[in-house]
Amino acid sequence: MELPDGFQFAGVRAGIKETPGKLDMALIVCPDGATAAGVYTQNLFFAAPVRWDRRCTPSENVVAIIVNSGNANACTGHRGWQDAERMAEATAAACGVQPNQVLVMSTGVIGVFLPMTQVDEGIAKAHATLGATLDDFRHASEGILTTDKGSKTAFRSVELTNGTHVRLAAMAKGAGMIGPSMATLLGVVLTDAALTPGDAQSALTDAVNVSFNSISVEGHTSTNDTILLMASGKKTASPLVGEDLARLKTALSDLCIELAKMIPDDGEGATHLIEIEVTGCRTTVDADRIARTIANSALVKTAVTGGDPNWGRVMSAAGYAGIEFDVLQSSLWINDTLIFSQGNPVEFDESVVSCSMKSNRETKLRIQIGEGEAVARFWTSDLTVDYVNFNADYCT
Amino acid sequence: MELPDGFQFAGVRAGIKETPGKLDMALIVCPDGATAAGVYTQNLFFAAPVRWDRRCTPSENVVAIIVNSGNANACTGHRGWQDAERMAEATAAACGVQPNQVLVMSTGVIGVFLPMTQVDEGIAKAHATLGATLDDFRHASEGILTTDKGSKTAFRSVELTNGTHVRLAAMAKGAGMIGPSMATLLGVVLTDAALTPGDAQSALTDAVNVSFNSISVEGHTSTNDTILLMASGKKTASPLVGEDLARLKTALSDLCIELAKMIPDDGEGATHLIEIEVTGCRTTVDADRIARTIANSALVKTAVTGGDPNWGRVMSAAGYAGIEFDVLQSSLWINDTLIFSQGNPVEFDESVVSCSMKSNRETKLRIQIGEGEAVARFWTSDLTVDYVNFNADYCT
Repeated sequence: MELPDGFQFAGVRAGIKETPGKLDMALIVCPDGATAAGVYTQNLFFAAPVRWDRRCTPSENVVAIIVNSGNANACTGHRGWQDAERMAEATAAACGVQPNQVLVMSTGVIGVFLPMTQVDEGIAKAHATLGATLDDFRHASEGILTTDKGSKTAFRSVELTNGTHVRLAAMAKGAGMIGPSMATLLGVVLTDAALTPGDAQSALTDAVNVSFNSISVEGHTSTNDTILLMASGKKTASPLVGEDLARLKTALSDLCIELAKMIPDDGEGATHLIEIEVTGCRTTVDADRIARTIANSALVKTAVTGGDPNWGRVMSAAGYAGIEFDVLQSSLWINDTLIFSQGNPVEFDESVVSCSMKSNRETKLRIQIGEGEAVARFWTSDLTVDYVNFNADYCT
Repeated sequence: MELPDGFQFAGVRAGIKETPGKLDMALIVCPDGATAAGVYTQNLFFAAPVRWDRRCTPSENVVAIIVNSGNANACTGHRGWQDAERMAEATAAACGVQPNQVLVMSTGVIGVFLPMTQVDEGIAKAHATLGATLDDFRHASEGILTTDKGSKTAFRSVELTNGTHVRLAAMAKGAGMIGPSMATLLGVVLTDAALTPGDAQSALTDAVNVSFNSISVEGHTSTNDTILLMASGKKTASPLVGEDLARLKTALSDLCIELAKMIPDDGEGATHLIEIEVTGCRTTVDADRIARTIANSALVKTAVTGGDPNWGRVMSAAGYAGIEFDVLQSSLWINDTLIFSQGNPVEFDESVVSCSMKSNRETKLRIQIGEGEAVARFWTSDLTVDYVNFNADYCT
């Protein structure tokens, strides 16, 4: 768990969240500048900080990421946009750089204006406490949380062809869209490899597609989802190419999958992480659509909650995904037990499968389609009474 | 509540359902033959009876509809198809007509073969008890139920331009896809007007689009959804045309909306019926997509469960529906209170709106988009702890 070179971190309490003692701001600084890329929510009501970051990435020279939790600065109109700009300006002033070298992320309640006095104080406090230790990194990873049970971090080391090791470190937050009005998914990935802005962007986009874009809790796309990548280049003389770039991309995808799976695993009220693997499709888009449709079925989720190998719910969800396939070539395994084979029910011991579902945190659904070679994986949480209580009892 | 002329009904217990005393078969007969049309599930795993009915409709000469509840005859392969055929043949033999003059509907558990001995006995019993009273109609409407709290029926009378009154009577079942493995939506509409097969089909398709295709409980499309229309023609010398056809179509849509709304209102565990009206779109397809996306958000549903006017959840759901619109031209009313206006939050008395949500069975969400004139309405149930318990606790 070594951190990549070139970064400093701080996590502080600014007083944005009501709960006393909870950290609610994070600052990540790369004093010598980093290549940066971002992937953002597709929601039309994207929040002000998303609008800011879209303008600033990809970039060859980003110095800081400033994050607040407890307020999403979404659906806040013109004033919200000014507030996001002011967050970037204040952070830039503290770091002695230009505002467009600062990226901004916000997460928390929707439709409420940011308390800018607290935000300004938080930025100053965070800048004053920057450090490069693992503890500093952990504080930052705590400053971005909302309803998460704990911080979500992941690390990788990649050996390049010349024997150099570059490092990747990442943090994320999100437990479903279950916050005060709506929590959101935020993530930051840092590396000390050098990358061109174009490579940084494509590596991040590819990694996010198989990780953060392949998870759900209830399928409600937030207004603030943002994943950022910063590459300090401290460990490599020049941007990675060829085999080295490929190795970094593999490690980046792997890291993002590890981190992304923590989100539905920590989904509000979740008692199971559900992995859905769809194989044998014509395209990965088809496979993804089928996996996503199964993942978002409340009937599939509640079946897993109850440890019930209710295969009719899984196959019928596949059947309404909008992808054409031959049902007589389709099969289903639950936790590696064949349940439905080539369009026909299979006799199986329900008590054994049910027991494996009940006694494991993870339930695996594997659907084989007979149309091609493409594969997709998707992760979601089950749907429990606690999820409903949490989201029904909360009052804005 | 007069029944249309030309029909006979029976509802009996054949022993397909385990619960003693529950009716589980229904028979509707139009001895002199009726024009018939059908609208069916789009699920690839459509059940055997759906396959049968698709082949037989639209038609000028359907004599009977045979229905069983307690078993969906879905995902049952070749044997399931034979069983559906045999249901049609046995009913045709009892009525003295050809099998392709009989339509079949099944609803209940998925992936289990029909108990054909009971089905055969049920057909004989139903045929022996046919009658044309309102009680007979009610028995039939009970024979098609699964997890519904009670039977769902609706009636209309339409005055034609010559002063004749034609009647419409309809029954439906469905309480979400919440049955043993999956319940389904079935409906039958009967009229004594005469219709050509083409007009019957287009009238039914139009009516279903604004009614049964505009409701959801959890959005999981079943394998068995079927709505059938039978027109006996007993009250009109020739098929309706012009203004008379238009009047019938209006009454048919109105009737179907009344009946369709009963389904999410009776959604498993539902404490609220949610009506979503989206106005000002470029096309009805756009409006429908936005309404449907809001309806299927677990966060919107749980907000209504809790009586929480959580407008951020509603607008952000509209924002990920995949329809382009100007967010600065969009507004939201909850139970007629303006909450979000032209892209900006409005100050409103939360306690008043929350109280109106808590004290009424129905919550209305109205979203105005500034792109055109098209409108869509959609109805769904809220998401409650009882829904989760019902679907998690059930074991196949």
